[in-house]
Amino acid sequence: MWRAEIKVLLKPSILDPQGQAAEKTLAAMGYAEVDQVRVGKYLEVTFSAPDRAAAEAKVQELCTRLLVNTVIEDYTFTLVEVAS
Amino acid sequence: MWRAEIKVLLKPSILDPQGQAAEKTLAAMGYAEVDQVRVGKYLEVTFSAPDRAAAEAKVQELCTRLLVNTVIEDYTFTLVEVAS
Repeated sequence: MWRAEIKVLLKPSILDPQGQAAEKTLAAMGYAEVDQVRVGKYLEVTFSAPDRAAAEAKVQELCTRLLVNTVIEDYTFTLVEVAS
Repeated sequence: MWRAEIKVLLKPSILDPQGQAAEKTLAAMGYAEVDQVRVGKYLEVTFSAPDRAAAEAKVQELCTRLLVNTVIEDYTFTLVEVAS
């Protein structure tokens, strides 16, 4: 079994209102040292695959077919082998 | 400058309806190899701090004061030093 840890963020050109809200709130709370906040999704998908190459291909397929909107979002992932 | 990459997931005891919806949809799409999907938040916070220890303490403070609901969510983070 594999666990894919997938980080999804809006593309840099897309407005991130949640991140801006967090930035403004932190500024209002006195955190002048905070420069930028970006808010995205974090997904953990546990699945079976015969080997690492097949697992990587599967994660890309799951992301592009359902989990990520690749028009407005970028994603990166890491794969961890876990006990079945 | 530091960039904190923060992964936030609901605690294991809390129902994750978004994850369950993704699981059911993937099953309906024929992905029988997918065992579990968990959906959380991913945050990137860029900020200044004098050193790594101070940066770690700051991230914990930002998370517990605003960014994470520690009653129902767990978080982990990694710190990356970035050019100012």
